[in-house]
Amino acid sequence: MKPALGVCYYPEHWPEEVWAEDARRMAETGLTWVRIGEFAWSRLEAEPGKLTFDWLDRAIDVLGNAGLKVVLGTPTATPPRWMIDKHPDMLAVDAQGNPRRFGSRRHYDFSHAGYRAECVRIARLLGERYGRNPHVQAWQIDNEYACHETTVSFSRTAVEGFRNWLAQKYQSPEALNRAWGNIFWSMDYAEFAEIDAPNLTVTEPNPAHVMDWRRYHSDMVVAFNKAQADVLHRLTGAPLIHNYMGRILEFDHFDVGADLEIASWDSYPIGFLSDRVDETSEHKHRFLRQGDPDMQALHHDLYRAVGRGRWWVMEQQPGPVNWAPYNPAPMPGMARLWAWEAIAHGAEAVCYFRWRQAPFAQEQMHAGLLRPDSAPAPALAEAAKLAEELAAMGDITPVQARVAILFDYPSAWAWEIQPQGADFDYFALVFDFYRGLRRLGLSVDILPTDTPDLSAYKLVLAPGLFTMPAPLRERLAALEGIAIVGPRSNTRTEDFAIPVPLPPALPDLDATIALTESLPPSVAEPLAQGGHVIRWLERLEGHADVVVETTSGQPVLVRRGPLHYLAGWPDAEALSRILQTACKELGIATTLLPDGLRVRDTATRRFYINYSPEPVTHDGMTIAAADVTWKDLP
Amino acid sequence: MKPALGVCYYPEHWPEEVWAEDARRMAETGLTWVRIGEFAWSRLEAEPGKLTFDWLDRAIDVLGNAGLKVVLGTPTATPPRWMIDKHPDMLAVDAQGNPRRFGSRRHYDFSHAGYRAECVRIARLLGERYGRNPHVQAWQIDNEYACHETTVSFSRTAVEGFRNWLAQKYQSPEALNRAWGNIFWSMDYAEFAEIDAPNLTVTEPNPAHVMDWRRYHSDMVVAFNKAQADVLHRLTGAPLIHNYMGRILEFDHFDVGADLEIASWDSYPIGFLSDRVDETSEHKHRFLRQGDPDMQALHHDLYRAVGRGRWWVMEQQPGPVNWAPYNPAPMPGMARLWAWEAIAHGAEAVCYFRWRQAPFAQEQMHAGLLRPDSAPAPALAEAAKLAEELAAMGDITPVQARVAILFDYPSAWAWEIQPQGADFDYFALVFDFYRGLRRLGLSVDILPTDTPDLSAYKLVLAPGLFTMPAPLRERLAALEGIAIVGPRSNTRTEDFAIPVPLPPALPDLDATIALTESLPPSVAEPLAQGGHVIRWLERLEGHADVVVETTSGQPVLVRRGPLHYLAGWPDAEALSRILQTACKELGIATTLLPDGLRVRDTATRRFYINYSPEPVTHDGMTIAAADVTWKDLP
Amino acid sequence: MKPALGVCYYPEHWPEEVWAEDARRMAETGLTWVRIGEFAWSRLEAEPGKLTFDWLDRAIDVLGNAGLKVVLGTPTATPPRWMIDKHPDMLAVDAQGNPRRFGSRRHYDFSHAGYRAECVRIARLLGERYGRNPHVQAWQIDNEYACHETTVSFSRTAVEGFRNWLAQKYQSPEALNRAWGNIFWSMDYAEFAEIDAPNLTVTEPNPAHVMDWRRYHSDMVVAFNKAQADVLHRLTGAPLIHNYMGRILEFDHFDVGADLEIASWDSYPIGFLSDRVDETSEHKHRFLRQGDPDMQALHHDLYRAVGRGRWWVMEQQPGPVNWAPYNPAPMPGMARLWAWEAIAHGAEAVCYFRWRQAPFAQEQMHAGLLRPDSAPAPALAEAAKLAEELAAMGDITPVQARVAILFDYPSAWAWEIQPQGADFDYFALVFDFYRGLRRLGLSVDILPTDTPDLSAYKLVLAPGLFTMPAPLRERLAALEGIAIVGPRSNTRTEDFAIPVPLPPALPDLDATIALTESLPPSVAEPLAQGGHVIRWLERLEGHADVVVETTSGQPVLVRRGPLHYLAGWPDAEALSRILQTACKELGIATTLLPDGLRVRDTATRRFYINYSPEPVTHDGMTIAAADVTWKDLP
Repeated sequence: MKPALGVCYYPEHWPEEVWAEDARRMAETGLTWVRIGEFAWSRLEAEPGKLTFDWLDRAIDVLGNAGLKVVLGTPTATPPRWMIDKHPDMLAVDAQGNPRRFGSRRHYDFSHAGYRAECVRIARLLGERYGRNPHVQAWQIDNEYACHETTVSFSRTAVEGFRNWLAQKYQSPEALNRAWGNIFWSMDYAEFAEIDAPNLTVTEPNPAHVMDWRRYHSDMVVAFNKAQADVLHRLTGAPLIHNYMGRILEFDHFDVGADLEIASWDSYPIGFLSDRVDETSEHKHRFLRQGDPDMQALHHDLYRAVGRGRWWVMEQQPGPVNWAPYNPAPMPGMARLWAWEAIAHGAEAVCYFRWRQAPFAQEQMHAGLLRPDSAPAPALAEAAKLAEELAAMGDITPVQARVAILFDYPSAWAWEIQPQGADFDYFALVFDFYRGLRRLGLSVDILPTDTPDLSAYKLVLAPGLFTMPAPLRERLAALEGIAIVGPRSNTRTEDFAIPVPLPPALPDLDATIALTESLPPSVAEPLAQGGHVIRWLERLEGHADVVVETTSGQPVLVRRGPLHYLAGWPDAEALSRILQTACKELGIATTLLPDGLRVRDTATRRFYINYSPEPVTHDGMTIAAADVTWKDLP
Repeated sequence: MKPALGVCYYPEHWPEEVWAEDARRMAETGLTWVRIGEFAWSRLEAEPGKLTFDWLDRAIDVLGNAGLKVVLGTPTATPPRWMIDKHPDMLAVDAQGNPRRFGSRRHYDFSHAGYRAECVRIARLLGERYGRNPHVQAWQIDNEYACHETTVSFSRTAVEGFRNWLAQKYQSPEALNRAWGNIFWSMDYAEFAEIDAPNLTVTEPNPAHVMDWRRYHSDMVVAFNKAQADVLHRLTGAPLIHNYMGRILEFDHFDVGADLEIASWDSYPIGFLSDRVDETSEHKHRFLRQGDPDMQALHHDLYRAVGRGRWWVMEQQPGPVNWAPYNPAPMPGMARLWAWEAIAHGAEAVCYFRWRQAPFAQEQMHAGLLRPDSAPAPALAEAAKLAEELAAMGDITPVQARVAILFDYPSAWAWEIQPQGADFDYFALVFDFYRGLRRLGLSVDILPTDTPDLSAYKLVLAPGLFTMPAPLRERLAALEGIAIVGPRSNTRTEDFAIPVPLPPALPDLDATIALTESLPPSVAEPLAQGGHVIRWLERLEGHADVVVETTSGQPVLVRRGPLHYLAGWPDAEALSRILQTACKELGIATTLLPDGLRVRDTATRRFYINYSPEPVTHDGMTIAAADVTWKDLP
Repeated sequence: MKPALGVCYYPEHWPEEVWAEDARRMAETGLTWVRIGEFAWSRLEAEPGKLTFDWLDRAIDVLGNAGLKVVLGTPTATPPRWMIDKHPDMLAVDAQGNPRRFGSRRHYDFSHAGYRAECVRIARLLGERYGRNPHVQAWQIDNEYACHETTVSFSRTAVEGFRNWLAQKYQSPEALNRAWGNIFWSMDYAEFAEIDAPNLTVTEPNPAHVMDWRRYHSDMVVAFNKAQADVLHRLTGAPLIHNYMGRILEFDHFDVGADLEIASWDSYPIGFLSDRVDETSEHKHRFLRQGDPDMQALHHDLYRAVGRGRWWVMEQQPGPVNWAPYNPAPMPGMARLWAWEAIAHGAEAVCYFRWRQAPFAQEQMHAGLLRPDSAPAPALAEAAKLAEELAAMGDITPVQARVAILFDYPSAWAWEIQPQGADFDYFALVFDFYRGLRRLGLSVDILPTDTPDLSAYKLVLAPGLFTMPAPLRERLAALEGIAIVGPRSNTRTEDFAIPVPLPPALPDLDATIALTESLPPSVAEPLAQGGHVIRWLERLEGHADVVVETTSGQPVLVRRGPLHYLAGWPDAEALSRILQTACKELGIATTLLPDGLRVRDTATRRFYINYSPEPVTHDGMTIAAADVTWKDLP
């Protein structure tokens, strides 16, 4: 595979006379992809039914003629103002019952059939006009589903959809009452029409109610995306893509990805460090202008799974952004490093966001490759350098990792609904495990829980899985390598009930969670083998072999042969010991990397990526701050 | 009195075939009471008017035949879904104007006459059927009034009720305008119909307005409870009980208690430590798995007063709960310790909540005496041990304490309405005084302010009383022992005005509050006699004898003979000195107890209760962590 | 000028029989002004059209006959209850869409034409009756505009007014779309009627949209005030005044002030320290009972500008207030010190708020000069002492300062709309610069940005100005002394777009902001010349002379002759060095004052004002804590 670079461009933001020069400079920089069109609905259809494609025709021509390949976006994340008059109830409603307003973006309700039909219509019109255009070599559907908490709507439309969805699922109110345990507080329903959204209740609603509400909304995102994908698939052979956003788990990305050819995501390392990474202020200070060394890689590996191997970075941060609480500039070199890291993880393309900084509207403080006055911003030269390096390198071939983490969106919803401890967060748990593996120099695959064959992996981690269907449990029990399940895995049925017999109920593993504790930040239970358990501690009963225990003798990690159950949230030290021990048993070499350095293997090379603010020496090389280098693998 | 143990049970949650075995195991454990029915309305009346009592008949039979006495609950805290269709405006409305929704519990407005009539109807039907049933030996009305902030409703129904209540109270708008001081900002009303709820005002509403609003809602709780009590009193001779919740002061419990035979409360020591005790994180860490050593005792003493001597713990925490920010497990022994402590304070019964952990719905992470798989949870053996100890001990006879604290619910409302300092909280003030007495090894009585005769007490504390009617002031002035009034006591008239002559206006005590300061946490005024004043400091004028003063010579505690006024919030050291000095003068022996140890006297025994996480040595004994022991009093 | 003292009085709060004695004691204390009437609408007009002026006639007579001059307030901040029935939509609406309620004050929408007409009517009636009354020597219109966040309303009334205002400003939707950059996210409007308030949008609204929304509301305050000013100007020759509140920037005070003769403000130093000064807890602890040593002075200098030289303190804190999170009492002497400081800054009058503490309603915990029982509160004697000192001193003549800070309300709105860094606040930036000058012993003028002639100033600071029109830039470039522009000055066009060529675009200064960073509190960039840049750092390009740079060589302060641009937010040390260097170059003597001491020059005297809690020695004198003294200037 030969990875490519690209950029996001908004011809509608600029006078037509500058398009050609812009295109020339893009090509000169070594960019080959250009994404356009995803926010341009008001320029394509200024009034209902009055379509104006001529400017887009010309923009695609100009770009294509400069040698660029176009990713064309459907503009459905930004319905024009007239759409609200046509469909007054298309606006999503917040948990307080207020309809959200026109004036920014993503102002629509995924449940709204009328708006969905409008989206299919505009996608069809675009597909009919550009589906076979040779310059248009990929399509993006909508933009950043769920961003700005837009998955769930508390509207009448959504509630009606939910009732139908429940009726399909349960067939009778009695079945639903049983599944949810509605007898608990006389919450039984006599008809589906009595069921409401689970907001504004006096105290917490039934978690089973909320879980189905979350599942319903995830399904609506899938259906919304599929409606556009279906019409475009009929009109073009180019791949369809969606650009997911970082640490957004409100809908099931695997389900959306199943209807698309390529997954992509929008990578803003410095913005994420500020507001989406759970870390100490020391850590955030150290990586202030680089971003967290594992946050991007985790998403790369996750979206590789979502795209079934095919994935991009659709938007790559090039300079300061506008949306985090504080917005420092990247250290020189980071705009190159981030893209190299994505490529080392198998990205087919990395597109910088955006070509020229917009001097107006919401993102005027968001840097581009060019300044608002068209002078080069710092990242332009870095992109050009990277383009040269890529040209020199030739093919990059991904390779399957030997260790994997199972990832599951519904688990994120479940523990958000029922954290039990205020800081129990599914993503944070997975992130700790991912970071633990990476600090040991390992490349990691992230896998959906329905991965039919895990046999190629030596070590599989399954932390925090809400439910584990029997086939998954059997697959893990049958693994030749080591499987580490838990904490809090398989602790609920699909109906959000505690299963009896009690969890984790792993095949032939004599271990039962007799009691569960969540622990405040001031408490850390010391382990006899080093490190501590924090946040979450399950009391196990049974006769499984104890591998790790607290200093007071309470089992924390138990096993039956290769199948392990981990009954607590380990801190970094404890986790590192557990993973090192497992790797040693499996014959996987590990090395504790210097702080901020990460490595990633492709089929033929090992990449060294230095996120730290100082040079690091490793493997006989010194890698400068914010630098990337590589060695051929033997 | 022979105290008894019990448990809360939900036959409707389990298959009928397990009831008998459950009942047998309860009896085998030594439990004698079982509370049932309080959330079962949807199973008793699945459709309006379609009553189904047969399952409850059988449940009571099964339990009774196993030798258990039943507490039968009226299910009015959980109106079924159809009730909302019948009375769409019965839902309480939050301060933002949103009706609260069906889907959890307590979804009703205390002001709603239609719902109140439904409650009387179901109570009457239950009373008619079970009022003379020999197995039903007590009744519980509703469940945890006010829990989840459900006392106050900003509904039209409540506003209309409030207007009538005001018209009754004031008779004319002119009288109300004068009482409230509405001239202040042109807030005069011409008719009662112009008066609204005090929410959503531009800046703070008139505190007199809010105070009446709070009084009105307290009265509505009283009326709601009385309506059920009245109908049940006609149909049964068994005692009526309500189960109050910890640190809930939204309505006047003394007023509700006046219509019932027994008071009870729901004791969740570890949950309360986490979110209802104002303490340092060190303290919370130390008592993480035990709960605060004074929080339960204070409630025991308070509810003994509410029940005029007769009181229970209706729900006793047995293991981790589900509702605090973090939910650790009790230290082994605590499930026994907590119940013993209640018994030492005079509880007639302590019922664990609940028999078997429910695997479904909102409280699935709330432990029971049994696990969801019916295996014993840790508390079951502790309950059994306690039952044996109780059987061995024989009668336990309460005794009146020599020191008392006056407690007043309206004072809590008043200072919540007008804290003046951000951390001035009535309960916290009383709690500090209570803890100060208990650390000195004293048993304490808590008394309503209208207690007609205080003469049996040697030391009476009256902190933070909003108003002190003349008879109360005279009663305290006439005390042979010592009365310590203040801080902030008698500083308002019933109309929420500063009285002139200025407070505290105690008989013959020449002390006037000339000026009041609230102090931020960074400020502590040192006292010449040791310790500091924190949070609240009144500047006194007058010629009363100065007992305690600041290092700069400002009087803080003054007296005329036995009558003292305390003009500030003392820290623990200052309070301890003040209380020790008073006790010494009174000839009351005190001893500063080891941290975490508490003692409580009955007529014949002294109980030693060790909340600390390590053994303590006291009175020549070593008491293990989480252990309780006792000595006969001479 | 002979400054005077006064007091705020509410005859309607007290029995008529005490008025004469109150007036006598006021005069005896040395007070000459008394403000009355501003909250009395319900007593002037108890029913629509039923006017009752007789009590006010008598009150004015009693006060006037005692030798007092009356400031008569229009009561429009407290519309009576009947007004809401007459104009149900006059209530402002909050950002969640809830109408704010009757029951406190300021419950009106500035956009509401009906209510504005009612205000003109009552102002006219008062003007007709008292406009030529010899005792009424000044008028106050309304009270504390904007207090309690009352400038902006999200009502239908406001939205309709906004649309008309936009239509006037932009003339066509196309022009508005271009100005706002609505193409950005397909936010184009086809008609003005499609435009809504910018609340409840899914993510941030267009900043240009919000900026116009804020400008519109500021204009509504101006129009509301002007309507009353116009009618009163026709009926009286006495000066018109409004009393602004501290650190309130929601509307343009210069615009309101242009229609009035005198500006005044309400000075609550201890309340402000608690909740309106951004400082460390150590600083707040040190100045707990004195207030911040620069907060009042800044407002004095600001309101001197708003009043074009004529200004008062209309409400001066005399003791503890009721509205801050904590409310300690002033240190003895502060009630005199604060007033002296105002007079040193040129106040014509300082009125204490209030005469007698009200025992009822919202402000019962707000001290007065008298206690509720009419005994003297501590401030009474301080006021009397000050009155004697003033009588002894004779004329006080203000003098123009040599250093000035440009102040601009729209800049405050702009950076509130788009902080980019969470702690970027316009007032905080100006405050830092003002404190920096004052710590050097300088007297400061604050000026509006349209000040036509700056030539009398040697040093002019222009921090954080949203836009700088060409004339202003030219005026600063032409200054003979030193102008220091920035940080973040002139970084936007009037349409809230980044100008191209890029900012700051100062005449002949070769410096361009190539990139901007906001920095979290943990980051401080060290400067080669000492101190650090915090919060905000712009990366400059160009060839201007570098005066200050980071230790890594990035320019922070550059100049072309006297014209400087400052590209970051300096900490106290860095700012002090920059200002000292500039003053040295200009020949302005500076001296670093002891902590808490401040000086202020009039034409003939230097005043020394000691805010510190201990005596300080300076200029050969020792000034006691909370004391003020002065020397004649040579």
